[in-house]
Amino acid sequence: MAIRAAQPLLGKSCLVLGAGGFIGWNLVHRLRDDGAAVIAFDMRPAPDGCPGDVEWVEAGLDDHECLSALVRRADTVFHLASSSTPSSANADPAGDVGNSILPALALLDMLAESDARLVFVSSGGTVYGPDVPVPTPETAPTDPINAYGVSKLAIEKYIAISRRQRGLDAIILRVANPYGPHQNPLRGQGAIAAFLHRALTGEVIEIWGTGEVIRDYIYIGDLTAALSASAIYDGPHGLFNIGGGSGLSLNDIISKIEPLFDTPLQVERKPGRPLDVPASILDISRALEHLGWRPETRIETGLSQTLDWLRGVIAPRS
Amino acid sequence: MAIRAAQPLLGKSCLVLGAGGFIGWNLVHRLRDDGAAVIAFDMRPAPDGCPGDVEWVEAGLDDHECLSALVRRADTVFHLASSSTPSSANADPAGDVGNSILPALALLDMLAESDARLVFVSSGGTVYGPDVPVPTPETAPTDPINAYGVSKLAIEKYIAISRRQRGLDAIILRVANPYGPHQNPLRGQGAIAAFLHRALTGEVIEIWGTGEVIRDYIYIGDLTAALSASAIYDGPHGLFNIGGGSGLSLNDIISKIEPLFDTPLQVERKPGRPLDVPASILDISRALEHLGWRPETRIETGLSQTLDWLRGVIAPRS
Repeated sequence: MAIRAAQPLLGKSCLVLGAGGFIGWNLVHRLRDDGAAVIAFDMRPAPDGCPGDVEWVEAGLDDHECLSALVRRADTVFHLASSSTPSSANADPAGDVGNSILPALALLDMLAESDARLVFVSSGGTVYGPDVPVPTPETAPTDPINAYGVSKLAIEKYIAISRRQRGLDAIILRVANPYGPHQNPLRGQGAIAAFLHRALTGEVIEIWGTGEVIRDYIYIGDLTAALSASAIYDGPHGLFNIGGGSGLSLNDIISKIEPLFDTPLQVERKPGRPLDVPASILDISRALEHLGWRPETRIETGLSQTLDWLRGVIAPRS
Repeated sequence: MAIRAAQPLLGKSCLVLGAGGFIGWNLVHRLRDDGAAVIAFDMRPAPDGCPGDVEWVEAGLDDHECLSALVRRADTVFHLASSSTPSSANADPAGDVGNSILPALALLDMLAESDARLVFVSSGGTVYGPDVPVPTPETAPTDPINAYGVSKLAIEKYIAISRRQRGLDAIILRVANPYGPHQNPLRGQGAIAAFLHRALTGEVIEIWGTGEVIRDYIYIGDLTAALSASAIYDGPHGLFNIGGGSGLSLNDIISKIEPLFDTPLQVERKPGRPLDVPASILDISRALEHLGWRPETRIETGLSQTLDWLRGVIAPRS
């Protein structure tokens, strides 16, 4: 692996759309550490503790005038903003089309007027189909397992057209399930955050089905490293899988969490129907070879750091 | 090839969405000839000469109450309705999302409440990428060449999810460039209709570039036969390429049209940039083997029948 410059993004201006979200807020810090000038864009006000040198812009993606002015100032635009979650998108695919695809199309028009690179976070867990090799390479067929995956895939395709027809400079990352500090454990996304939260508050952890369903988890610090690397990547690829490099079952997670607590976890197993995709793991060979990146955080370390953060924001009951 | 029943759709109720369009109007007649009871749905009023036994419903796809009542009465729903064309979709992708994807999502919800089969006409000319084998099989990667292809592909993916999650019975046809009677030669779609119209009115036929770009053309009668066959197909496949089985260049078309006229065609060649996809031909092996269908109309016959129709609707100047 190449030796990393201390501040590889020094002199670069980075615009983070969705800076107040789980990935965005971690990315803001990472980009700043890597030397970038950071413009943070979100509908929400700046969180407490936002560094003074981060330019926080409180606006929505539909404020095209504001957004296009910021795009023109940026070297790299990270598009993480989405009001959709997998469950909200599946419950209301039409709403998701409006929340996800339409703002992305408007952004692509703005980018066509600028020289900025786009880094788009797509969904490694949903764009591939149920019948793909595991681990799954970028070249596998894309038959999204749900509506969330369809809109992400559609945006990928619009990006590809803009790349061919308007010379857009764009990198797409198909990202596995991120976990780590600042992930809201109550939002229904992320088994790790939910389990740690329940363990910490003494609530019962419910596991539906056998618990043997395998998913790919990536520590947030490793994901933001891949995002930062995408800002300076100089090569032929426009699409990378970004994951932890291996998979964990829910039972694996339970057994890794258990030692972090003094008392046994309360786990309740409930009958559940078999899921479409029993195992989903991304093949990250391309990123390992070409992006100058690898996931460096062991699951034990990641869980421990996530738990430390959760302890800081929650008053434990046990 | 299996011997075809005289009226294979006898006793079936077929709903045609977009019945007033080029494909739809031809399909209405084909389904009727095949014995189906036809409900024709279109924003436009019934064309002159609409057979009395066709139930014509003048309404828009946004009239959900009307549409869902019709869906409940149908055995097969043919979704051909679209206010987008390739050029309008590319000029305004966001508008195309609203015109194409959102009505399709609403239709899928209605179909989830019924037992009807959906037959969806997708775009064989735009959903595949620029770097695919030619002829192109259904298994080739899908990297749409334009926004029109992205929305068609997204609808395909939503259909696939509805199939898996809600048991939808659906057949998707990725269709080549149809030509034949009732294609509007002035709408900017279809080189054959445009060339024949110009030849007939004594206008100059303009060819941009070398004229060697190859596309796949299918006679409308062969396409409606494939659509009709899709209503009764009973097998494992949910996706078929439907094309003419071979390709024609613009120069080929000119040389096939020329003998149909007494005087030489006026052709003007203009410099043009090379297109993304120099040759696009669909591999129709799967349909030949499984759908009980094959394209039967020779190009000479198809051109001649199209010209006959055009002569009937246009006052010739030469």
